[in-house]
Amino acid sequence: MLHTALGFGKEFDHIRQIAVALGQRAVGLGDDCAMVPDGDGRLIVSTDVAVEGVHFERAWLTEHEIGFRAASAALSDIAGSGGAAQALLVVLVVPADVPERHVIALMEGVGAAAEGGQARVIGGDLSRGPVWMVAVTVLGRTPREVKRGGARPGDRLWVTGGLGGARAALVQLQSGHTPQQEHRVRFAAPTPRLAEGQWLGSRGATAMIDVSDGLLGDCRHLAAASQVGLAIDESTVPLDPGIEKIASAVGLTSARFAAEGGEDYELLVTLPSTFSSQDADRFQQDTGTALTWIGEVTRNAGQVLVDGIDLPTMGFDHFA
Amino acid sequence: MLHTALGFGKEFDHIRQIAVALGQRAVGLGDDCAMVPDGDGRLIVSTDVAVEGVHFERAWLTEHEIGFRAASAALSDIAGSGGAAQALLVVLVVPADVPERHVIALMEGVGAAAEGGQARVIGGDLSRGPVWMVAVTVLGRTPREVKRGGARPGDRLWVTGGLGGARAALVQLQSGHTPQQEHRVRFAAPTPRLAEGQWLGSRGATAMIDVSDGLLGDCRHLAAASQVGLAIDESTVPLDPGIEKIASAVGLTSARFAAEGGEDYELLVTLPSTFSSQDADRFQQDTGTALTWIGEVTRNAGQVLVDGIDLPTMGFDHFA
Repeated sequence: MLHTALGFGKEFDHIRQIAVALGQRAVGLGDDCAMVPDGDGRLIVSTDVAVEGVHFERAWLTEHEIGFRAASAALSDIAGSGGAAQALLVVLVVPADVPERHVIALMEGVGAAAEGGQARVIGGDLSRGPVWMVAVTVLGRTPREVKRGGARPGDRLWVTGGLGGARAALVQLQSGHTPQQEHRVRFAAPTPRLAEGQWLGSRGATAMIDVSDGLLGDCRHLAAASQVGLAIDESTVPLDPGIEKIASAVGLTSARFAAEGGEDYELLVTLPSTFSSQDADRFQQDTGTALTWIGEVTRNAGQVLVDGIDLPTMGFDHFA
Repeated sequence: MLHTALGFGKEFDHIRQIAVALGQRAVGLGDDCAMVPDGDGRLIVSTDVAVEGVHFERAWLTEHEIGFRAASAALSDIAGSGGAAQALLVVLVVPADVPERHVIALMEGVGAAAEGGQARVIGGDLSRGPVWMVAVTVLGRTPREVKRGGARPGDRLWVTGGLGGARAALVQLQSGHTPQQEHRVRFAAPTPRLAEGQWLGSRGATAMIDVSDGLLGDCRHLAAASQVGLAIDESTVPLDPGIEKIASAVGLTSARFAAEGGEDYELLVTLPSTFSSQDADRFQQDTGTALTWIGEVTRNAGQVLVDGIDLPTMGFDHFA
């Protein structure tokens, strides 16, 4: 357990220390999903928490969106493992003075995300507390779990969809502005890439992770877990439309803004070099989502190069 | 989904409304454990949250105890379904200034409870937040899930172990005193009755629930779910030793103090009338835990009588 599948960051340092402390009482900490032991070898499970004031502010999101977003984030972990979602459990903590209709609206958001992921809500727990908090556990099944740790030198690095929209919305919300509607949806009602993850898992993906800590942060996780390096051509990073002005307002190129953004919930995946652009076209035909080749897997364990430069630690850290 | 397996209380009203709102997107809300659909029919799962300031105060518990207690509460739901525990996922929210050693100590407490329940920690999530919060999801397996809803008129009502110790500790802690050591253990490091639940499940238990909302509160849940009545002989309620003085200090008989107490994590179970006191002796020989006959199952749906008197709503409510 001294090795866990995590890159840099205080949250990840904590998790590493926890894994060391628990020793044999813990297994497989650090991946997005856990394989349930002694099952049929196909059951995977993941849990994800969203805390008011850390992951979101009440003023930014409707109650429906808080629930939808929390459930989507958890479903996205199943997507990143190449699995199909099956069932959700929801822990909801809200202040005692919250009207029941808000609790119901939040749970309707959870239910809508579950329905979109072809999963059902099967249980949960409810408590009052000082802030809103939603913890979602998702169970899923996969014929072949794709982990973070399977990338091999010579594989190629790909990413689904576009990046940067969620961060663009976040920047606008944090500065009291109204985000563009498409950016708002990326942030407030992300779509877990479940069909995409299953497609990639069944077509030989060697490693996969959902982009929740930012593309570069998740590249570090994948590189650390696989004990490989990644070399990214930043000019190829697919951008969500309309992020240029906001990126430039915060002093970043659009590509860097998108690559450092968090919570896009796209999939970062390594595929054998035999996976072609024709295969990527077929992916898009089948799923309606783009798949873009953004880099190479190298032998330099743990190193992430962006246009040849080894960048310092970056990516979201909910413990920073 | 208009019928859920819950008694009175604001938390339970919320859950009922949630179940109505979710309609077909939710299944089986209200029981302690959920059966995972499309599995092998033996996988059960439950989730349970402990929030600082609601379920505990930091001053009352060591970090190890906070983790142990949260995990035990979740494991207890598996016990109440007659299942064996298998795996835990832990969501941990702590203030940003908490030293890492406290996070580790909490997770060691979770690990110790997991080990006691022959389960392993397989995943989780970590975030900062304004207060300590631990949400534990437990997966388990059972050859035959025992629900709240299976009690039949003519069955008898039994309870494992003794009651009131956890409440005695809580009263002392709330008034700034040091609880008796045995009471402190009942509150801070409860033992989930896993072997006991499996024994009872395999010997024909018709309905079962772990006592987390207080004996009388959980009697109401069981009666509501089973659409039966329960008639309790309060003089037979098994008491934890040493609670008399504390009960009397708060103006209650020891029996009522124990019957209204929460978070004992004993098992409340209905068994066919053919289950004899010799069978209860065998239970005690096999598990080391007492099993006490405390009442009868009647035809009066939802009614809970204590010594012939229909008592108003009671039991813990973490939303009150």
